[in-house]
Amino acid sequence: MTGRLTVLAGPTAVGKGTVAAHIREQHPEVWLSVSATTRPARPGEVDGVHYHFVSGDRFAEMVAAGEMLEWAVVHGRASYGTPRRPVEEALAEGRLPLLEIDLQGARQVRASMPDARFVFLAPPSWDDLVTRLVGRGTESEAERAVRLETAKVELAASKEFDEVIVNDEVRRAAQELVSLMRSEKKTASEPTG
Amino acid sequence: MTGRLTVLAGPTAVGKGTVAAHIREQHPEVWLSVSATTRPARPGEVDGVHYHFVSGDRFAEMVAAGEMLEWAVVHGRASYGTPRRPVEEALAEGRLPLLEIDLQGARQVRASMPDARFVFLAPPSWDDLVTRLVGRGTESEAERAVRLETAKVELAASKEFDEVIVNDEVRRAAQELVSLMRSEKKTASEPTG
Repeated sequence: MTGRLTVLAGPTAVGKGTVAAHIREQHPEVWLSVSATTRPARPGEVDGVHYHFVSGDRFAEMVAAGEMLEWAVVHGRASYGTPRRPVEEALAEGRLPLLEIDLQGARQVRASMPDARFVFLAPPSWDDLVTRLVGRGTESEAERAVRLETAKVELAASKEFDEVIVNDEVRRAAQELVSLMRSEKKTASEPTG
Repeated sequence: MTGRLTVLAGPTAVGKGTVAAHIREQHPEVWLSVSATTRPARPGEVDGVHYHFVSGDRFAEMVAAGEMLEWAVVHGRASYGTPRRPVEEALAEGRLPLLEIDLQGARQVRASMPDARFVFLAPPSWDDLVTRLVGRGTESEAERAVRLETAKVELAASKEFDEVIVNDEVRRAAQELVSLMRSEKKTASEPTG
Protein backbone atom coordinates (compact mmCIF):
# COMPACT_ATOMS: atom_id res chain seq x y z
CA MET A 1 0.00 0.00 0.00
CA THR A 2 1.58 3.26 -1.10
CA GLY A 3 -0.96 5.72 0.29
CA ARG A 4 -2.95 8.34 -1.51
CA LEU A 5 -2.20 11.93 -2.45
CA THR A 6 -4.51 14.52 -0.88
CA VAL A 7 -5.18 17.73 -2.81
CA LEU A 8 -6.49 20.73 -0.86
CA ALA A 9 -8.06 23.57 -2.85
CA GLY A 10 -10.73 26.19 -2.39
CA PRO A 11 -11.97 29.65 -3.31
CA THR A 12 -9.81 32.77 -3.20
CA ALA A 13 -9.27 34.05 0.36
CA VAL A 14 -10.77 31.01 2.10
CA GLY A 15 -7.49 30.56 3.98
CA LYS A 16 -6.07 27.36 2.52
CA GLY A 17 -2.52 28.72 2.77
CA THR A 18 -3.06 29.35 6.48
CA VAL A 19 -4.37 25.82 7.01
CA ALA A 20 -1.38 24.41 5.11
CA ALA A 21 1.06 26.53 7.17
CA HIS A 22 -0.58 25.30 10.37
CA ILE A 23 -0.19 21.69 9.21
CA ARG A 24 3.45 22.30 8.32
CA GLU A 25 4.11 23.47 11.87
CA GLN A 26 1.86 21.21 13.91
CA HIS A 27 1.59 17.97 11.95
CA PRO A 28 5.09 16.82 10.96
CA GLU A 29 3.70 13.43 9.92
CA VAL A 30 2.17 15.17 6.89
CA TRP A 31 4.48 15.63 3.91
CA LEU A 32 3.61 18.97 2.32
CA SER A 33 4.43 19.41 -1.35
CA VAL A 34 6.70 22.37 -2.16
CA SER A 35 5.97 24.16 -5.44
CA ALA A 36 8.63 25.19 -7.92
CA THR A 37 8.53 28.78 -9.17
CA THR A 38 10.53 31.06 -11.45
CA ARG A 39 9.77 34.17 -9.43
CA PRO A 40 12.44 35.53 -7.07
CA ALA A 41 12.27 34.72 -3.37
CA ARG A 42 10.67 37.37 -1.16
CA PRO A 43 12.11 38.34 2.21
CA GLY A 44 11.59 35.51 4.68
CA GLU A 45 11.01 32.84 2.05
CA VAL A 46 13.34 29.85 2.29
CA ASP A 47 14.31 27.83 -0.80
CA GLY A 48 13.02 24.28 -0.44
CA VAL A 49 10.60 25.22 2.34
CA HIS A 50 8.20 27.78 0.88
CA TYR A 51 9.16 27.20 -2.77
CA HIS A 52 11.84 25.64 -4.89
CA PHE A 53 13.20 28.74 -6.63
CA VAL A 54 14.37 27.72 -10.09
CA SER A 55 15.41 29.45 -13.30
CA GLY A 56 13.13 29.62 -16.32
CA ASP A 57 15.45 27.20 -18.13
CA ARG A 58 15.23 24.66 -15.31
CA PHE A 59 11.46 25.04 -15.11
CA ALA A 60 11.19 24.50 -18.87
CA GLU A 61 13.37 21.37 -18.59
CA MET A 62 11.06 19.99 -15.92
CA VAL A 63 7.96 20.69 -18.04
CA ALA A 64 9.56 19.07 -21.10
CA ALA A 65 10.54 16.02 -19.06
CA GLY A 66 6.99 15.58 -17.77
CA GLU A 67 8.20 16.30 -14.24
CA MET A 68 5.35 18.68 -13.38
CA LEU A 69 2.11 17.23 -11.99
CA GLU A 70 0.51 20.56 -12.84
CA TRP A 71 1.85 24.00 -13.69
CA ALA A 72 0.79 27.45 -14.82
CA VAL A 73 2.14 30.77 -15.94
CA VAL A 74 0.54 33.31 -13.60
CA HIS A 75 -0.34 36.76 -14.95
CA GLY A 76 2.07 36.07 -17.82
CA ARG A 77 4.95 36.76 -15.46
CA ALA A 78 6.15 33.75 -13.48
CA SER A 79 5.66 30.02 -13.64
CA TYR A 80 4.51 27.85 -10.76
CA GLY A 81 4.30 24.08 -10.70
CA THR A 82 4.25 20.91 -8.61
CA PRO A 83 7.25 18.63 -9.15
CA ARG A 84 6.02 15.08 -9.64
CA ARG A 85 8.94 13.07 -8.29
CA PRO A 86 8.88 14.19 -4.64
CA VAL A 87 5.14 13.43 -4.50
CA GLU A 88 5.72 9.94 -5.92
CA GLU A 89 8.56 9.34 -3.49
CA ALA A 90 6.44 10.44 -0.53
CA LEU A 91 3.69 8.09 -1.70
CA ALA A 92 6.13 5.20 -2.11
CA GLU A 93 7.49 5.80 1.41
CA GLY A 94 4.00 5.52 2.86
CA ARG A 95 3.96 9.13 4.05
CA LEU A 96 0.88 11.38 4.08
CA PRO A 97 1.40 13.69 1.10
CA LEU A 98 -0.61 16.90 0.87
CA LEU A 99 -0.77 19.34 -2.01
CA GLU A 100 -2.25 22.82 -1.37
CA ILE A 101 -3.14 24.34 -4.69
CA ASP A 102 -5.60 26.49 -6.63
CA LEU A 103 -8.73 25.24 -8.34
CA GLN A 104 -7.26 25.07 -11.83
CA GLY A 105 -4.22 23.21 -10.54
CA ALA A 106 -6.45 20.70 -8.76
CA ARG A 107 -8.26 19.91 -12.01
CA GLN A 108 -4.92 19.36 -13.72
CA VAL A 109 -3.78 16.96 -10.99
CA ARG A 110 -6.92 14.95 -11.65
CA ALA A 111 -5.55 14.20 -15.12
CA SER A 112 -2.21 12.96 -13.73
CA MET A 113 -3.41 11.30 -10.53
CA PRO A 114 -7.12 10.51 -10.79
CA ASP A 115 -6.99 8.40 -7.60
CA ALA A 116 -5.95 11.35 -5.44
CA ARG A 117 -8.32 12.58 -2.73
CA PHE A 118 -9.66 16.03 -3.65
CA VAL A 119 -10.65 18.14 -0.64
CA PHE A 120 -12.43 21.50 -0.95
CA LEU A 121 -11.86 24.02 1.83
CA ALA A 122 -15.11 25.98 2.24
CA PRO A 123 -15.85 29.14 4.23
CA PRO A 124 -18.21 28.72 7.19
CA SER A 125 -20.70 30.99 5.45
CA TRP A 126 -21.14 33.24 2.44
CA ASP A 127 -20.91 36.31 4.71
CA ASP A 128 -17.60 35.08 6.11
CA LEU A 129 -16.14 34.74 2.62
CA VAL A 130 -17.45 38.19 1.66
CA THR A 131 -15.76 39.67 4.71
CA ARG A 132 -12.46 38.01 3.79
CA LEU A 133 -12.72 39.14 0.16
CA VAL A 134 -13.78 42.72 0.59
CA GLY A 135 -12.78 43.23 4.20
CA ARG A 136 -10.44 46.12 3.57
CA GLY A 137 -13.18 48.13 1.93
CA THR A 138 -10.82 49.94 -0.42
CA GLU A 139 -12.34 48.71 -3.68
CA SER A 140 -15.04 50.36 -5.75
CA GLU A 141 -18.59 49.05 -5.92
CA ALA A 142 -17.88 47.58 -9.37
CA GLU A 143 -14.73 45.84 -8.11
CA ARG A 144 -16.67 44.46 -5.19
CA ALA A 145 -19.38 43.09 -7.49
CA VAL A 146 -16.76 41.37 -9.65
CA ARG A 147 -15.14 39.74 -6.62
CA LEU A 148 -18.43 38.45 -5.29
CA GLU A 149 -19.40 37.04 -8.68
CA THR A 150 -16.05 35.26 -8.87
CA ALA A 151 -16.53 33.89 -5.35
CA LYS A 152 -19.90 32.40 -6.31
CA VAL A 153 -18.30 30.58 -9.22
CA GLU A 154 -15.41 29.33 -7.10
CA LEU A 155 -17.78 28.08 -4.39
CA ALA A 156 -19.69 26.11 -7.01
CA ALA A 157 -16.46 24.18 -7.65
CA SER A 158 -17.01 22.27 -4.39
CA LYS A 159 -19.10 19.87 -6.46
CA GLU A 160 -15.95 18.77 -8.27
CA PHE A 161 -14.39 17.51 -5.01
CA ASP A 162 -14.55 14.30 -3.01
CA GLU A 163 -14.76 15.96 0.40
CA VAL A 164 -15.60 19.39 1.82
CA ILE A 165 -13.99 20.74 5.00
CA VAL A 166 -15.33 23.96 6.53
CA ASN A 167 -12.63 26.41 7.59
CA ASP A 168 -14.47 27.68 10.67
CA GLU A 169 -11.24 27.62 12.71
CA VAL A 170 -7.78 26.93 11.33
CA ARG A 171 -6.71 24.44 13.99
CA ARG A 172 -9.94 22.45 13.76
CA ALA A 173 -10.01 22.41 9.95
CA ALA A 174 -6.37 21.26 9.87
CA GLN A 175 -7.15 18.52 12.39
CA GLU A 176 -10.12 17.32 10.36
CA LEU A 177 -7.99 17.18 7.22
CA VAL A 178 -5.15 15.28 8.90
CA SER A 179 -7.61 12.86 10.53
CA LEU A 180 -9.12 12.19 7.12
CA MET A 181 -5.69 11.50 5.66
CA ARG A 182 -4.71 9.24 8.57
CA SER A 183 -7.93 7.27 8.84
CA GLU A 184 -7.98 6.22 5.25
CA LYS A 185 -4.34 5.21 5.40
CA LYS A 186 -5.06 3.05 8.43
CA THR A 187 -8.12 1.56 6.75
CA ALA A 188 -6.11 0.76 3.66
CA SER A 189 -3.25 -0.98 5.46
CA GLU A 190 -5.39 -2.68 8.14
CA PRO A 191 -8.59 -3.71 6.43
CA THR A 192 -11.50 -4.65 8.66
CA GLY A 193 -14.30 -7.16 8.08
CA MET B 1 -18.02 5.87 -34.22
CA THR B 2 -18.56 9.24 -32.58
CA GLY B 3 -15.37 11.00 -33.60
CA ARG B 4 -12.73 12.57 -31.45
CA LEU B 5 -12.37 15.99 -29.89
CA THR B 6 -9.34 17.99 -31.05
CA VAL B 7 -7.78 20.46 -28.61
CA LEU B 8 -5.56 23.22 -30.03
CA ALA B 9 -3.25 25.05 -27.65
CA GLY B 10 0.11 26.75 -27.72
CA PRO B 11 2.30 29.46 -26.24
CA THR B 12 1.18 33.06 -25.75
CA ALA B 13 1.17 35.05 -29.02
CA VAL B 14 1.71 32.04 -31.29
CA GLY B 15 -1.49 32.94 -33.14
CA LYS B 16 -3.87 30.13 -32.21
CA GLY B 17 -6.82 32.52 -32.13
CA THR B 18 -6.02 33.59 -35.68
CA VAL B 19 -5.82 29.98 -36.85
CA ALA B 20 -9.15 29.24 -35.15
CA ALA B 21 -10.77 32.32 -36.74
CA HIS B 22 -9.51 31.23 -40.15
CA ILE B 23 -11.00 27.76 -39.63
CA ARG B 24 -14.31 29.29 -38.53
CA GLU B 25 -14.50 31.22 -41.82
CA GLN B 26 -12.97 28.75 -44.26
CA HIS B 27 -13.76 25.29 -42.90
CA PRO B 28 -17.46 25.12 -42.04
CA GLU B 29 -17.17 21.33 -41.64
CA VAL B 30 -15.29 21.98 -38.39
CA TRP B 31 -17.42 22.59 -35.31
CA LEU B 32 -15.63 25.19 -33.20
CA SER B 33 -16.37 25.22 -29.49
CA VAL B 34 -17.66 28.54 -28.11
CA SER B 35 -16.49 29.42 -24.60
CA ALA B 36 -18.78 30.78 -21.91
CA THR B 37 -17.63 33.88 -20.07
CA THR B 38 -18.90 36.22 -17.37
CA ARG B 39 -17.18 39.27 -18.84
CA PRO B 40 -19.23 41.77 -20.86
CA ALA B 41 -19.20 41.59 -24.65
CA ARG B 42 -16.82 43.96 -26.40
CA PRO B 43 -17.80 45.89 -29.52
CA GLY B 44 -18.08 43.51 -32.46
CA GLU B 45 -18.43 40.38 -30.34
CA VAL B 46 -21.56 38.33 -31.03
CA ASP B 47 -23.20 36.22 -28.33
CA GLY B 48 -23.03 32.55 -29.31
CA VAL B 49 -20.36 33.18 -31.95
CA HIS B 50 -17.33 34.59 -30.13
CA TYR B 51 -18.52 33.70 -26.64
CA HIS B 52 -21.61 32.70 -24.73
CA PHE B 53 -22.01 35.71 -22.46
CA VAL B 54 -23.53 34.53 -19.19
CA SER B 55 -24.08 35.89 -15.69
CA GLY B 56 -21.94 34.82 -12.77
CA ASP B 57 -24.95 32.98 -11.33
CA ARG B 58 -25.44 31.02 -14.55
CA PHE B 59 -21.73 30.25 -14.79
CA ALA B 60 -21.73 29.00 -11.19
CA GLU B 61 -24.75 26.80 -11.96
CA MET B 62 -22.88 25.25 -14.88
CA VAL B 63 -19.81 24.59 -12.74
CA ALA B 64 -21.89 23.03 -9.98
CA ALA B 65 -23.71 20.82 -12.49
CA GLY B 66 -20.43 19.56 -13.93
CA GLU B 67 -21.26 21.23 -17.25
CA MET B 68 -17.79 22.72 -17.76
CA LEU B 69 -15.12 20.62 -19.47
CA GLU B 70 -12.60 23.11 -18.09
CA TRP B 71 -12.84 26.57 -16.61
CA ALA B 72 -10.83 29.30 -14.94
CA VAL B 73 -11.13 32.64 -13.23
CA VAL B 74 -8.76 34.92 -15.14
CA HIS B 75 -6.90 37.66 -13.24
CA GLY B 76 -9.49 37.26 -10.47
CA ARG B 77 -11.96 39.18 -12.60
CA ALA B 78 -13.95 37.06 -15.03
CA SER B 79 -14.64 33.39 -15.52
CA TYR B 80 -14.12 31.51 -18.77
CA GLY B 81 -15.07 27.92 -19.49
CA THR B 82 -15.94 25.29 -22.08
CA PRO B 83 -19.51 23.99 -21.88
CA ARG B 84 -19.42 20.21 -22.05
CA ARG B 85 -22.77 19.44 -23.63
CA PRO B 86 -22.28 21.10 -27.04
CA VAL B 87 -18.95 19.26 -27.39
CA GLU B 88 -20.58 15.93 -26.59
CA GLU B 89 -23.42 16.66 -29.02
CA ALA B 90 -20.98 17.55 -31.81
CA LEU B 91 -19.12 14.32 -31.14
CA ALA B 92 -22.33 12.28 -31.16
CA GLU B 93 -23.34 13.88 -34.47
CA GLY B 94 -20.06 12.80 -36.06
CA ARG B 95 -18.89 16.38 -36.59
CA LEU B 96 -15.28 17.54 -36.31
CA PRO B 97 -15.15 19.34 -32.97
CA LEU B 98 -12.28 21.72 -32.25
CA LEU B 99 -11.46 23.45 -28.99
CA GLU B 100 -8.98 26.37 -29.06
CA ILE B 101 -7.77 26.93 -25.56
CA ASP B 102 -4.81 27.87 -23.34
CA LEU B 103 -2.25 25.44 -21.97
CA GLN B 104 -3.79 25.12 -18.52
CA GLY B 105 -7.22 24.54 -20.03
CA ALA B 106 -5.82 21.82 -22.27
CA ARG B 107 -4.44 19.97 -19.26
CA GLN B 108 -7.82 20.17 -17.57
CA VAL B 109 -9.56 18.75 -20.65
CA ARG B 110 -7.20 15.79 -20.45
CA ALA B 111 -8.82 14.90 -17.12
CA SER B 112 -12.35 15.01 -18.61
CA MET B 113 -11.62 13.62 -22.08
CA PRO B 114 -8.33 11.71 -22.08
CA ASP B 115 -9.01 10.34 -25.57
CA ALA B 116 -9.04 13.79 -27.17
CA ARG B 117 -6.33 14.70 -29.68
CA PHE B 118 -4.05 17.36 -28.21
CA VAL B 119 -2.38 19.57 -30.84
CA PHE B 120 0.32 22.10 -30.00
CA LEU B 121 0.62 25.13 -32.28
CA ALA B 122 4.32 26.03 -32.45
CA PRO B 123 6.03 29.12 -33.87
CA PRO B 124 8.25 28.52 -36.93
CA SER B 125 11.26 29.59 -34.88
CA TRP B 126 12.28 31.03 -31.55
CA ASP B 127 13.06 34.36 -33.25
CA ASP B 128 9.59 34.45 -34.74
CA LEU B 129 7.99 34.00 -31.32
CA VAL B 130 10.26 36.65 -29.82
CA THR B 131 9.17 39.09 -32.53
CA ARG B 132 5.50 38.38 -31.79
CA LEU B 133 6.00 38.72 -28.04
CA VAL B 134 8.12 41.83 -27.88
CA GLY B 135 7.38 43.25 -31.31
CA ARG B 136 6.07 46.57 -30.15
CA GLY B 137 9.25 47.30 -28.24
CA THR B 138 7.48 49.31 -25.56
CA GLU B 139 8.46 47.14 -22.61
CA SER B 140 11.46 47.48 -20.34
CA GLU B 141 14.45 45.15 -20.53
CA ALA B 142 13.24 43.39 -17.35
CA GLU B 143 9.75 42.95 -18.79
CA ARG B 144 11.24 41.57 -21.99
CA ALA B 145 13.34 39.05 -20.01
CA VAL B 146 10.26 37.86 -18.11
CA ARG B 147 8.32 37.38 -21.33
CA LEU B 148 11.07 35.39 -22.95
CA GLU B 149 11.48 33.17 -19.90
CA THR B 150 7.74 32.50 -19.92
CA ALA B 151 7.89 31.70 -23.63
CA LYS B 152 10.60 29.09 -23.04
CA VAL B 153 8.44 27.37 -20.45
CA GLU B 154 5.37 27.47 -22.67
CA LEU B 155 7.32 26.04 -25.62
CA ALA B 156 8.48 23.15 -23.43
CA ALA B 157 4.81 22.22 -23.04
CA SER B 158 4.83 20.84 -26.60
CA LYS B 159 6.04 17.57 -25.04
CA GLU B 160 2.64 17.19 -23.36
CA PHE B 161 0.87 17.07 -26.73
CA ASP B 162 0.09 14.35 -29.27
CA GLU B 163 0.89 16.45 -32.35
CA VAL B 164 2.78 19.65 -33.18
CA ILE B 165 1.74 21.95 -36.03
CA VAL B 166 4.03 24.82 -37.01
CA ASN B 167 2.23 28.13 -37.56
CA ASP B 168 4.46 29.30 -40.41
CA GLU B 169 1.42 30.56 -42.35
CA VAL B 170 -2.12 30.74 -40.99
CA ARG B 171 -3.83 29.20 -44.04
CA ARG B 172 -1.38 26.31 -44.24
CA ALA B 173 -1.40 25.58 -40.50
CA ALA B 174 -5.22 25.60 -40.51
CA GLN B 175 -5.25 23.24 -43.50
CA GLU B 176 -2.84 20.86 -41.77
CA LEU B 177 -5.00 20.83 -38.66
CA VAL B 178 -8.23 20.21 -40.56
CA SER B 179 -6.58 17.47 -42.65
CA LEU B 180 -5.42 15.80 -39.45
CA MET B 181 -8.94 15.93 -38.03
CA ARG B 182 -10.47 14.62 -41.26
CA SER B 183 -8.01 11.84 -41.94
CA GLU B 184 -8.32 10.24 -38.57
CA LYS B 185 -12.09 10.41 -38.75
CA LYS B 186 -11.99 8.62 -42.10
CA THR B 187 -9.53 6.06 -40.75
CA ALA B 188 -11.73 5.41 -37.77
CA SER B 189 -14.93 4.85 -39.73
CA GLU B 190 -13.35 3.06 -42.71
CA PRO B 191 -10.54 0.96 -41.31
CA THR B 192 -7.95 -0.31 -43.78
CA GLY B 193 -5.87 -3.49 -43.75
